[in-house]
Amino acid sequence: MGAYQELERIFAKLHRIGGISGIMHWDAAVMMPEKSAPERAEQLAFLHSLHHETLATKKVGEKIQAAKQRAEDLNDWQKANLRLMEHSWLHATAVDEKLVVALSKAGSECEMAWRKARGENDFKTFAKYMKKVLKLVREMAVAKAEKLKLSKYDALLDQYDSGRKSVEIDAIFSDLKKFLPGFLDKVLTRQKKKKIIPISGKFPIATQKQLGKKMMKKIGFDFAHGRLDTSHHPFCGGGPGDVRITTRYYEDNFLPSFMGVLHETGHALYEFGLPEKWRTQPVGGALGMSVHESQSLFIEMQIARSYEFCEFAAPVTAKEFKRPGKEFSAENLYNTVTCVKPGLIRVEADEVTYPAHVILRYEIEKDLISGGMEIDDLPERWSKGMRELLDVKVPNDKDGCMQDIHWTDGSFGYFPTYTLGAMTAAQLAKAMKKQLPGIMREIQRGDFKNMRKWLAENLHSHGSHYTAEELLKKSTGSALNASAFKEHLQNRYLP
Amino acid sequence: MGAYQELERIFAKLHRIGGISGIMHWDAAVMMPEKSAPERAEQLAFLHSLHHETLATKKVGEKIQAAKQRAEDLNDWQKANLRLMEHSWLHATAVDEKLVVALSKAGSECEMAWRKARGENDFKTFAKYMKKVLKLVREMAVAKAEKLKLSKYDALLDQYDSGRKSVEIDAIFSDLKKFLPGFLDKVLTRQKKKKIIPISGKFPIATQKQLGKKMMKKIGFDFAHGRLDTSHHPFCGGGPGDVRITTRYYEDNFLPSFMGVLHETGHALYEFGLPEKWRTQPVGGALGMSVHESQSLFIEMQIARSYEFCEFAAPVTAKEFKRPGKEFSAENLYNTVTCVKPGLIRVEADEVTYPAHVILRYEIEKDLISGGMEIDDLPERWSKGMRELLDVKVPNDKDGCMQDIHWTDGSFGYFPTYTLGAMTAAQLAKAMKKQLPGIMREIQRGDFKNMRKWLAENLHSHGSHYTAEELLKKSTGSALNASAFKEHLQNRYLP
Repeated sequence: MGAYQELERIFAKLHRIGGISGIMHWDAAVMMPEKSAPERAEQLAFLHSLHHETLATKKVGEKIQAAKQRAEDLNDWQKANLRLMEHSWLHATAVDEKLVVALSKAGSECEMAWRKARGENDFKTFAKYMKKVLKLVREMAVAKAEKLKLSKYDALLDQYDSGRKSVEIDAIFSDLKKFLPGFLDKVLTRQKKKKIIPISGKFPIATQKQLGKKMMKKIGFDFAHGRLDTSHHPFCGGGPGDVRITTRYYEDNFLPSFMGVLHETGHALYEFGLPEKWRTQPVGGALGMSVHESQSLFIEMQIARSYEFCEFAAPVTAKEFKRPGKEFSAENLYNTVTCVKPGLIRVEADEVTYPAHVILRYEIEKDLISGGMEIDDLPERWSKGMRELLDVKVPNDKDGCMQDIHWTDGSFGYFPTYTLGAMTAAQLAKAMKKQLPGIMREIQRGDFKNMRKWLAENLHSHGSHYTAEELLKKSTGSALNASAFKEHLQNRYLP
Repeated sequence: MGAYQELERIFAKLHRIGGISGIMHWDAAVMMPEKSAPERAEQLAFLHSLHHETLATKKVGEKIQAAKQRAEDLNDWQKANLRLMEHSWLHATAVDEKLVVALSKAGSECEMAWRKARGENDFKTFAKYMKKVLKLVREMAVAKAEKLKLSKYDALLDQYDSGRKSVEIDAIFSDLKKFLPGFLDKVLTRQKKKKIIPISGKFPIATQKQLGKKMMKKIGFDFAHGRLDTSHHPFCGGGPGDVRITTRYYEDNFLPSFMGVLHETGHALYEFGLPEKWRTQPVGGALGMSVHESQSLFIEMQIARSYEFCEFAAPVTAKEFKRPGKEFSAENLYNTVTCVKPGLIRVEADEVTYPAHVILRYEIEKDLISGGMEIDDLPERWSKGMRELLDVKVPNDKDGCMQDIHWTDGSFGYFPTYTLGAMTAAQLAKAMKKQLPGIMREIQRGDFKNMRKWLAENLHSHGSHYTAEELLKKSTGSALNASAFKEHLQNRYLP
């Protein structure tokens, strides 16, 4: 067997371990009895080290070198696969196992402390744990930077969004920063004139579930290869060919689960559309987090908050909830789901103010990694940023710098992917509408066939054959930039 | 680290793999989308070979020998643990991996062919696949017999019920064979005089579920460490500290799910009661299948079909289903759940006729392994056996020799554990009633505390510290025999 073929065998094993972990994680979030958590933690840790032991060996490194020397024997997909194998291997071997274990421990402890401290608005305790995590993340950034020949922050970014550089993000975010404040003012002024009828009352959870499933089927979720369930934090998980999305329900407001299900369905369509032939290999998997998020936001923001979609969805929801009134007119539903309101909390933000939340976190985490600021500086910096970006006053730390889980376990470099995803989605939607001029009339009729086909052909079916940047250029004609996103906001909020 | 300590580490790893497989199997039966089966089969096969690779090595064998040479350093639990480790290792290494793979493949193929052939009553096709399986099982029996220094059939028995010998079973079953036919006649004659009011109509599945959970809680099922779900074939699965039982529901008859849930709860109580300190080690696990089945039959047969339990359960079920009529009197419920009716199908048999089904299969499988009969002889032998044992005429093969799944995948040696379990349960119940004279009055009041405590102290908490035989002697004063079972049948059916 050649070196490349041996690598395929090893990565197929990693794929199995990943698929098993996916189901075990899903089960922990959705099905597991409450007190089975300690045993599950041991099982997941075991799978994690099995993955690490299988990947981070000298032998794998040697095989990669040997395969690279005979790269002329490989076809394009195999070459891309080999590049991704090396990327995984570099990340897995960059950091000493002791540091990985220390970070994992400090991360768990910080996350636990955070849950309590956040409730009590206790920044001091939170900071104590957070400092330990940051110290270890900085060490990890140094190690990864050296191995990957990247800057420290870019080495962290690269974990979530392979190949992404902060210099690109800086340019895009500075463009957005110039645009957003003035734009937001105008949107808020215009919005005042609109009359929105509150969609209130009780929405039985069983009906919400039924409606969610109906929408999923319409859009193309394949229930023979997936499920919808309930969990505290919504996610798209499971494994290849077995895609499991979750949501949570509020009886007095159906929109969080409605929009949440559509968002996760976007993630799921991507998973369903990946090239089956390459399923067990890295090249058959999804691109980084920005692209994955672009697929959920494509469905949630570009499609499901469009006027045309509201025209399709309003009568369906009205019928499902037996509410024939005006609150469920297409116009009122549209005004409701495109309402803009600057606020403290990122996860509750609308698509206009969301980027501000991300930009703030991005700038802070870059400075935290470079050493330009420390954990103790967080509250002040946060208040200043929220005032400047959204004109919002931060009354306390729990709804300020302590609101997110990401940093607690060391996930620095993740936040930008949300907004890069939103921009990628806008760029893709613009290209699709140009290529398929009738597409929004199809959406209006509840026909998602050609939309799905376009996504599959232009994105999903390519797996990780191309880089995110290459693929975006192929499907939209240009590299990632803010213009389609700004244009989208303009069209929707200031037509 | 000493050899024994290293073995504990290796077996803790095997325990993790087993726990993960348990959840993945449960998920496949209960949650998995229909078309995810091929990927799941790969994942389970991967876990199976990981388990095998971890256990069946020369190194493990050497460590076992080294640990045995320093056995004087070990305490009683460790010694028992080492004995069980060796038992696992011997079974895992006895058979060449090629034969294991061939049998697994032939078994899957035969099982699939059986599903179709049974529906079509096509013995000829079934026999073709079954012959391949038998050939390989015979080879395996030879290999295991040599390695374990047992007879061929005993080597197969030993997989399910460590240490059990067919010579003991022969004695017990021949005792039963003498007793049962005459006894059955008398029971049937007596039964004719009883008036049983049919418990018919519709029993909403949601109510059945609620009733099942109520009963489980009463008896002591810990929902913080377990679940009840629905699957096509009921089972008790999951993993340690996370016990998941399943049942199936029929809208026109609540008793199969009611009794099924009680049966699986018996299995679950055993799992819950195992010594936590030894959870990751073989000595902390359950004893063989006879003892496990004794725990389900203890709850289902000894407790839940007693008159006292019916006195407790009748008003509860009547209230749950809103049926105040006489059909739900304690007497009518008791007469219903203790009704005896010789029939063709093992899984539908009552506790009086069940042993006949098992004895027939036991005698046949012994002869199939020894070479005393062949697959082609099955239909004739089956008809003859059913006539002699139960006076039942077998009209076709699908409800005759093709009714069970066990042999299709090579599980020879499993059947006797059902009846050995029933006898163990009777022996345990007799001992408990002697030691706790008021226990059945407690059951009558729906109080299961002392019953659970007795089971925990006398059985569950010992894990596999003692052999099944030793433990039975400790808790009941005698080795396994048919007398308590016969006495139980006499008391219940011919009082």
